[in-house]
Amino acid sequence: MTTNLQTFRQSVRQGEWTLHTSGVLPGHLQGNVVILPSDWAQDFYQFCLNNPKPCPIIGMSEVGDPRLPALGLDLDIRIDVPKYRIWQNGKLVSEVTDIKDYWNSNLVAFVLGCSFTFESALVRAGIPLRHLEHRKNVAMYNTTLALKPSARFWGNMVVSMRPLTVADTIRAIEISSRLPQAHGAPVHFGSPNDIGIADLQNPEYGESVEILSNELPVFWACGVTPQQVLTQVKPPFCITHAPGCMLLADVQENFDFLKSF
Amino acid sequence: MTTNLQTFRQSVRQGEWTLHTSGVLPGHLQGNVVILPSDWAQDFYQFCLNNPKPCPIIGMSEVGDPRLPALGLDLDIRIDVPKYRIWQNGKLVSEVTDIKDYWNSNLVAFVLGCSFTFESALVRAGIPLRHLEHRKNVAMYNTTLALKPSARFWGNMVVSMRPLTVADTIRAIEISSRLPQAHGAPVHFGSPNDIGIADLQNPEYGESVEILSNELPVFWACGVTPQQVLTQVKPPFCITHAPGCMLLADVQENFDFLKSF
Repeated sequence: MTTNLQTFRQSVRQGEWTLHTSGVLPGHLQGNVVILPSDWAQDFYQFCLNNPKPCPIIGMSEVGDPRLPALGLDLDIRIDVPKYRIWQNGKLVSEVTDIKDYWNSNLVAFVLGCSFTFESALVRAGIPLRHLEHRKNVAMYNTTLALKPSARFWGNMVVSMRPLTVADTIRAIEISSRLPQAHGAPVHFGSPNDIGIADLQNPEYGESVEILSNELPVFWACGVTPQQVLTQVKPPFCITHAPGCMLLADVQENFDFLKSF
Repeated sequence: MTTNLQTFRQSVRQGEWTLHTSGVLPGHLQGNVVILPSDWAQDFYQFCLNNPKPCPIIGMSEVGDPRLPALGLDLDIRIDVPKYRIWQNGKLVSEVTDIKDYWNSNLVAFVLGCSFTFESALVRAGIPLRHLEHRKNVAMYNTTLALKPSARFWGNMVVSMRPLTVADTIRAIEISSRLPQAHGAPVHFGSPNDIGIADLQNPEYGESVEILSNELPVFWACGVTPQQVLTQVKPPFCITHAPGCMLLADVQENFDFLKSF
């Protein structure tokens, strides 16, 4: 585990850190990344505003500018994500550790809030999260929850799932509800079938975890949603982060509200 | 239904309004009432601070002073509750429509926040509440949820129950969590047995409602809790409101936070 932001940035920039960033540098805001040509970016922007739970925008670059000064003065979206995915016509064509060869003056980078933020808050409030305890990537599922379309963008929501007791579910809703920039409150709990999930032990992304008899599966809107959407919408070119391998911001999370809990 | 506060107050003061106050003058804060001799009031005050979910203090009189200026300049706790209960040694001895004959210079009046407040917020947010639709008093139950004792005060929590869909349960938790002065977020949902309720169709107070197959019972801490506690603690003398027949404050509820939902 890296000890500070500078060391972590160097490690990412040198292509050494290619793992998921769950639990890395707790307190720093992390984000999902979507990079699109400018003619697709406007539609995507509206799509995000239509669907703030899966797609909460926390940063956006100028056209062709790889910097994101609101999230970190030194940030460069071409080199600061541990692992990227390159998409052509909705197909994943490669995974790379920097996108210097792919960046051009017509691209716009979006950073969307991430569940790692509300997970930090939950852990700080004493709510145990099994996938973190077992050092797994969180389980994520495609659902039948329809998103609100915008122009060329449409699709269903991807959710992440964490098993919790009833008491912890209530507390988790209270806490994550206060973090709308990180997916907000859950979209569902209980029966997976209600949202089109056939088998909790077979997540489409991430790794499954055990659900104890006194626990419910609790489902949050997930930042992988845009990647599922991209496979259907098929823009000619797109870059995303690899699931779990987030952009780390200089900006710190603010959990002052937890003092009243 | 009365049309304004002044008409309602007159009707209560003349002993004409002796019904429950659910849905009366929406927007006005309502409160549960507990009146105790001063030597018991200090313990009760600490007990409320120990148990803010069932007993959120929103007003408290000076010793022997029947006024509650923070809740209404004209309020008089002796005449402004539609129906009172007189308790001696933990036993309900009578119900009356004013307490002028019982008030004395040694009494302290407490006003505790009330579920009617969060119910107004839920209804305003478009969440249907069956007992309101059926013009019933809400169903309330004794539980095995132990309260945090203070000196002579101890006992278990009384809860109110509302059946909600999963989606509405999540929204109801988000909303009521922002109203700590009105019992805050639920204490439980789902299996009634988990909190010692044997039969939802037989509430200890109020009236039962149907629970549809796509709904869960959702349980909130209830302002009737102190009355249940008083039957065990048995102070020599005490006055409460009759369940559902609340004190109406001049003060308005503030639901500005709903704009962000």
